[in-house]
Amino acid sequence: MDAGLLKRWIVGRPMPLAQARHERLSKTIALAVFSSDALSSVAYATEEILLVLVLAGAAAAHLSVPLALAITGLLLIVVVSYQQTIHAYPSGGGSYIVARANLGATPGLIAAAALLIDYVLTVSVSVAAGVAALTSAFPALHEHRVAFGVTFIALIAFANLRGVRESGRVFAVPTYLFVGTFAFMVATGLWRWLQGDLVPLPSRGMAETVPLTWFLVLRAFSSGCTALTGVEAISNGVPAFKPNESRNAAITMGWMAGILGVLFLGITVLAWALQVTPSEDETVVSQIARALFGRDVFYFLVQGVTMLILLLAANTSFADFPRLSFFLARDRFIPRQFANQGDRLVFSNGILILGGLAAILLVAFRGSTHALIPLYAVGVFISFTLSQASMVRRWMRKRGEGWWWRVGLNAVGAAATGVVLITIAMTKFTHGAWIVVLLIPTLVAAFLTMHRHYEEVATQLSLESMEPPPPLQNTVLVLVGDLHRGVLKALQYAQSLSGNAKAVFVESDPERTHRLEQRWAKWGMGLPLIVLTSPYRSLLGPLLQYVDHILEQGGDNHIVTIVLPEFIPARWWQHLLHNQTALLIKGAMLFRKNVIVTDVPYHLKH
Amino acid sequence: MDAGLLKRWIVGRPMPLAQARHERLSKTIALAVFSSDALSSVAYATEEILLVLVLAGAAAAHLSVPLALAITGLLLIVVVSYQQTIHAYPSGGGSYIVARANLGATPGLIAAAALLIDYVLTVSVSVAAGVAALTSAFPALHEHRVAFGVTFIALIAFANLRGVRESGRVFAVPTYLFVGTFAFMVATGLWRWLQGDLVPLPSRGMAETVPLTWFLVLRAFSSGCTALTGVEAISNGVPAFKPNESRNAAITMGWMAGILGVLFLGITVLAWALQVTPSEDETVVSQIARALFGRDVFYFLVQGVTMLILLLAANTSFADFPRLSFFLARDRFIPRQFANQGDRLVFSNGILILGGLAAILLVAFRGSTHALIPLYAVGVFISFTLSQASMVRRWMRKRGEGWWWRVGLNAVGAAATGVVLITIAMTKFTHGAWIVVLLIPTLVAAFLTMHRHYEEVATQLSLESMEPPPPLQNTVLVLVGDLHRGVLKALQYAQSLSGNAKAVFVESDPERTHRLEQRWAKWGMGLPLIVLTSPYRSLLGPLLQYVDHILEQGGDNHIVTIVLPEFIPARWWQHLLHNQTALLIKGAMLFRKNVIVTDVPYHLKH
Repeated sequence: MDAGLLKRWIVGRPMPLAQARHERLSKTIALAVFSSDALSSVAYATEEILLVLVLAGAAAAHLSVPLALAITGLLLIVVVSYQQTIHAYPSGGGSYIVARANLGATPGLIAAAALLIDYVLTVSVSVAAGVAALTSAFPALHEHRVAFGVTFIALIAFANLRGVRESGRVFAVPTYLFVGTFAFMVATGLWRWLQGDLVPLPSRGMAETVPLTWFLVLRAFSSGCTALTGVEAISNGVPAFKPNESRNAAITMGWMAGILGVLFLGITVLAWALQVTPSEDETVVSQIARALFGRDVFYFLVQGVTMLILLLAANTSFADFPRLSFFLARDRFIPRQFANQGDRLVFSNGILILGGLAAILLVAFRGSTHALIPLYAVGVFISFTLSQASMVRRWMRKRGEGWWWRVGLNAVGAAATGVVLITIAMTKFTHGAWIVVLLIPTLVAAFLTMHRHYEEVATQLSLESMEPPPPLQNTVLVLVGDLHRGVLKALQYAQSLSGNAKAVFVESDPERTHRLEQRWAKWGMGLPLIVLTSPYRSLLGPLLQYVDHILEQGGDNHIVTIVLPEFIPARWWQHLLHNQTALLIKGAMLFRKNVIVTDVPYHLKH
Repeated sequence: MDAGLLKRWIVGRPMPLAQARHERLSKTIALAVFSSDALSSVAYATEEILLVLVLAGAAAAHLSVPLALAITGLLLIVVVSYQQTIHAYPSGGGSYIVARANLGATPGLIAAAALLIDYVLTVSVSVAAGVAALTSAFPALHEHRVAFGVTFIALIAFANLRGVRESGRVFAVPTYLFVGTFAFMVATGLWRWLQGDLVPLPSRGMAETVPLTWFLVLRAFSSGCTALTGVEAISNGVPAFKPNESRNAAITMGWMAGILGVLFLGITVLAWALQVTPSEDETVVSQIARALFGRDVFYFLVQGVTMLILLLAANTSFADFPRLSFFLARDRFIPRQFANQGDRLVFSNGILILGGLAAILLVAFRGSTHALIPLYAVGVFISFTLSQASMVRRWMRKRGEGWWWRVGLNAVGAAATGVVLITIAMTKFTHGAWIVVLLIPTLVAAFLTMHRHYEEVATQLSLESMEPPPPLQNTVLVLVGDLHRGVLKALQYAQSLSGNAKAVFVESDPERTHRLEQRWAKWGMGLPLIVLTSPYRSLLGPLLQYVDHILEQGGDNHIVTIVLPEFIPARWWQHLLHNQTALLIKGAMLFRKNVIVTDVPYHLKH
C-alpha cells in the first residue's frame, strides 16, 4: 500500500482511458515540445565546429562560417524532405514506420536502432551541454557537473511520468524566452559588428597541432551536423498535434527550421567576428554573451535560457523514445512491456529505461558534451538517409500527382544525408562513432531474435487445428510433515478440491510416523495417509518417485496437484527461522509437465 | 541435476540413517580428533606470553617460566573439574547443557554464545598459527598468508561435510607425529641444556617500551591462558566415544592434559634457555627448532607437524560447533535448519556457517594470530566458569556419596577460572576483548527472541482445544486475458477442481472483450465468462474488488482459488519478454487470508 501511495505522489492520480483523446498540442505548444531538441543545438554546434578547426591553429577558425552555411543548406534539404513525410504519414512518420513500410523489416529495424540510440544520446548530450551553460556562468559548479546532470535527467523523467500535456504547458515559456533572447543577442551583435563596434576577445594563443587538411575540414563539418539532430522529431509526433495534424506539423517544422538556421548562422558569424576560442571551462555562447553584454543581467538570462532549452531538448526524447518503443513492442520486436500504458497514459517503461541509459552514459563520459558528440550524429543521419530513401521508393510506387518532383526532392535529401553519414562515420570513427556502428547491428539482431520468439510462442499457443480437449483427471495430494492448524487448513482445502484427495507423509524416523498415525484418526479429516519411506532422509526423492508413479499410470490426461501447507510468519526475518520446504518442492516440480503445486498459506499473527 | 552431481562429488554418497550408530571413536582416534585443539596451543601460547613480556625489555622474558607453571596448575584444576562433568553428563556435557540444567536458561545461553564465538575463533586462530608455521619455514609465502588460511579453512570444511569417522582416521597420524616430534625436541633441548650444551640465539636488541608492572604480567598471563583453549572439547563429545563413553572420555582427557602440560612447559623453558625473542616473521617454535637442529630435515618436520596439528585444532571446532548448534536448534534458540542432518549424517549448515565466519575473521584480521588472541580467551573462560559453577550447584543439590569433596573440587575450578576470566577481560579489553563482551549479550538476546517466536508459532498452530473443522466452500476462478492453449489447460484444470468454476476477464478495451466473447462459445469449456471493467487499465484493482466481494458474501468458511494460466518459456531470457502478471497477482494476494493462487504452467518448447 505504501508503495502505491508513493507512486501516486510521484506520478499523480491515474487517468481513465477516455482522457487520452484530449492530450493534443497546439502549434505553439508543439513547437516548444518538439523543436527544442533542434533549436537547442545552437548552444553547442558552433563550438563543436570550432573545436576541430582550431586544431589547425586559430587562423583556421574563419572556415566555420562557410561550414555553417553548408550545414544550413543541408538543414533546408532535410526539412523540405521531411515535410513530405509528414503529409504522407499523418499518423506518425518516424523513420522506423516509413522505412519498414517502403524498404522492408530490416531497414526499418536499422532505422529504429539508430533512433533509439539517438534519443538516448539526445538526453545525455543536451543535459551535458545544459550543465555546461550553468557551469560557464558559475565556474565553481564545474566539478559537480555529473551530479547536476544526473539530477536533471531524474527531474525530466519525473515530469514525463506525469503525462505529456502538463510538460508541454510547463515548458512553452522557456522555449520562447530562448528564441527571443538569442534573436536579440544575434541582432545586437550583428548590428554592432556592422557598425565596426565589436572588440574581438583577447586571443588564447591556440597552437597549431595538426595541418589543415580536407579530412580535418570534413571532421569539423561532421561535428557541426549535430545542429540537425532533432529536426525529425516533429514527423514522429504528428498525431500529438491538433487537427489538421499534418498541416500543423509541417508548418511548425518550417518555423523551426527558419529559427534554427538564423540563430545557428548568427552565432557562428558572431563567434568568428569576436574571434572566440573554444575552451574547456566556458562555452562559446557564454563567451559571446559576455563580450556583448558583460557579466550582467542579460548575460545570466542567456545562460539560463540556454540551460532550459537544452533540458527541454532532453525532454523531446522522453516523448519520442517511449513512442518508438511502443511501435516496436506492438510489432513484437522488443519486450511487450514497452507497449503497456501507465495509469497516467504515458509509456512508463520507456521513460524509465531512457532516463536510466542516459544517466549511465552521462556518468561514463563524465558529463562532457565533446566526448559524447562523435556518437551522436551517426544515428541521426542513418535515420535521415533511410527515411528519405523510403520516401523515394514510395513515390516511385505510388506515382501520384507531381510524383517526379517529389522523387527528386527526396532523392536529393537521401543523397545529401547519405554522403554526410559516410563522412561522419569515417571522420569520427576512432573518436567513438565505432561504438554506434557496432551497436546498431547488435540491436537489430536482438530485435529479430525477440521477434522470432514471439512468433514461435504464438504458433505454439495457437488453437488453430485443435479440438476442445476432454476433461482432466486430477489426483490431489497433501504433503504433511506434522499435524497442526496449518496442515488442517490444507487438508480441508484438498478435500474441497477432490473427493479422492490423499495425504502423503515422507518418513524420516519411524517413531514420528507412529505418533502421526495415532493422531490421524481424529484430525485426518477422513483422508487416507500414505507413508513413503526415505532411507536417506531426503524429502524430495520419495515424493518425486511417488508422483512419477501416479503420472505413469494415469496417462496424458492425468494431472497431479500437490497441496503444500505453509505458514506465513508475520515478519520478514522470521522466514529465516523455518525450513523453506515449499520453495524446494516448487523448484523441483517446475519442469514436470503435469504437476501443479498449490500453497495453502496459514497466516501467523506475530 | 548438475548441482546434485556436484554435491555428490564434493560430499560423497548419502548415508542411510542406520549407519549413524557406527560413527564411534576409539580413545586413540578420539585423542586425535578432540585434543588437537588443546595440544596445538603449544605452538603459540609461549610466544603470546613472550610478546607481552618483551614490551618491558628482553630481561622480563624470564618471567615466562613461572607464568607457564601457573598456567599448567590452572590446567590441572580445569581438567580435574571437567572429568567430573564427563561422568555426570555421559550424553555430552558441554557448558551449554550443564549450565542450562543447573543454573537456568540464560546462563546456559551465555555459555552457548561464548562457546560458539570460541569455536569460530579456534578455527581462525589455529589456521592463522598453522599458516605462521608454514611461512616461518618458507618466508616467501608470508605475503600470501591470508589466501593460504582461507584455502585451509575451505579444505577442512570440505573434509567435515564428508562425515566424522573419515576425518578421525585421516587425522590420527599427524597428531601422534606432532606429540612424538615435540616430545623428542623438548627432550633433546632439555638434555642439551642440562649438559650446558645450549648456545643462546643472538639477541635482537628489544628496547624496553613500557615499565614492568603487575598489569603487564597479568596481561602476559592472560595471553598464555590460550594454552587452555579446547581442553573442554572432550566433554562436549562424550557420545562420540566407544562405550564405556564416560570412562574413555575421562581417561583421554587425562592423557591430553598430561601431554599438553609437559610440552607447554618444555617449550617455555627452552625458549627462555635459548633467549628466544618473538618476531613477526618467525614463530618461537621455529626459532627453537632451528637453534637445536639447524634448517635440516628435522626442522622441517617440526614445522610440518605444527602446521598439521593446528589444522586439526581447527577441525575440532568443526565437530563441536555443529553439535552445539544442533542442541540450540533442538531447544529452539536458533533456526531449526541447524538441526537438519545432511545426507552424510553431519550437520551441514553448522559446518558451512562456521567455515564462513572463520574465513571472514581471518581476512578481517589479515591472518595475524596475535591480533585474534585477545578475542579468543574470553569466551573460553566464560564457559569454563559457568560450567564449574553449574557443577557446584549440581553437587549441592544431589548430595550423593562424597559430595563435599566434589563441591570443593568444582568450587576451586569455578573460582580459579572466574578470576582468570576477569583478569583476561580487563587486561585485554582495549585489545579486542570488548568485541566479545558486547557480542555475547547480543547473541543471547537473539537466542531469546527466536525462542519466543518458535513458542508463539507452536501455540498458534496447536490443535489443543480445537474441534475438527467443517468442510470448506471453494469458489474457483480462472483469470483469462486471451484464449490460447495455455488458457485452455487452465480452464480444464479449473473444471477438474470444481463444477462451478468461472472464468474472469478484466476488460481494458471493449473491442477485445467482444472478440473474446465470440470465441468463448467454442473454447470456453462450458465455464461462464465474467467480464470486469477497468477504467484505469489496472488488472489488479477490479480483480481484488471481485474477490473481496465473493469473500464477504461467503463468510469465514469460504475460500477463493484463483487459477492463473502461465506459459513457461524454455530459456531464462525469454521470461523478460513477457508480462510478469502471475507474480504481480501472487504478491497482491499473499496477505489475503482466504485466497489461494494456483499457477497452471504451460511449457513452451523453445
